[in-house]
Amino acid sequence: MSVRTVLELHHVGIIVEDLDTAVASYQALGFSEPERFRIEEQEVEVATFSAGHGYVELVSPIVEDGGLVRYLASRGESVHHIAYRVDDIQAELTRVKAAGFELIDDTPRRGVHNWLVAFVHPKSCHGVLTEFVQIPDESGNADDS
Amino acid sequence: MSVRTVLELHHVGIIVEDLDTAVASYQALGFSEPERFRIEEQEVEVATFSAGHGYVELVSPIVEDGGLVRYLASRGESVHHIAYRVDDIQAELTRVKAAGFELIDDTPRRGVHNWLVAFVHPKSCHGVLTEFVQIPDESGNADDS
Repeated sequence: MSVRTVLELHHVGIIVEDLDTAVASYQALGFSEPERFRIEEQEVEVATFSAGHGYVELVSPIVEDGGLVRYLASRGESVHHIAYRVDDIQAELTRVKAAGFELIDDTPRRGVHNWLVAFVHPKSCHGVLTEFVQIPDESGNADDS
Repeated sequence: MSVRTVLELHHVGIIVEDLDTAVASYQALGFSEPERFRIEEQEVEVATFSAGHGYVELVSPIVEDGGLVRYLASRGESVHHIAYRVDDIQAELTRVKAAGFELIDDTPRRGVHNWLVAFVHPKSCHGVLTEFVQIPDESGNADDS
């Protein structure tokens, strides 16, 4: 096989009921103080722990209903997504779509930390909600336009 | 907070129905040829993809019943565990047990690649089966005895 590795394990997203409780648990497990964000338009609170070259992201809904609340109700606290860093997210989205993967986002959008992010549907990835992440360069410009 | 980061994101384990099918999907997603193992005593086949500084491990049962088969039947293909690299696995197990975490393995055991591994119960980690991994030094000696 001559396919080069283009995907680097970047972070895992874990959905939790209560962010403060989960942050305390993960600090007791061995992580340092996380960065915390409240993202009103996605109706979540997030705590991001550094974990070597990657990150662990705890995500908790801040509303009474919606997709994440239903996800929690049906599956409980659990891994929500796995994210891989890529160099050129739009190119990778185009490539995997052509290969038959179902995309949730045909084009990337801005995530926390100014990351460009896009999701691939779990049914194309053996049950795993899969995220691509492109990290902006130091100028903050993640676009290649 | 003065807790240092001791945990480095090392790999994600994904449980799949059929390993060949899943390997083909993950190669199409962007991974190179994996290393493959058949571990009779754990009744699994494993394919490990390099993913930057970490790994993605696809796991499939090779028997008709058992814990992983029941896991697949109840939860479907999904993330099975998240693994963190630590320098001294026995010290971390002792530390987190004292902090109240429920351990599946009080002492580490040998995993694939000669890694020393041990699991922390998902109910202590907000639903996530959590693995510690200590990588042996180049002499192959992971023990500090």
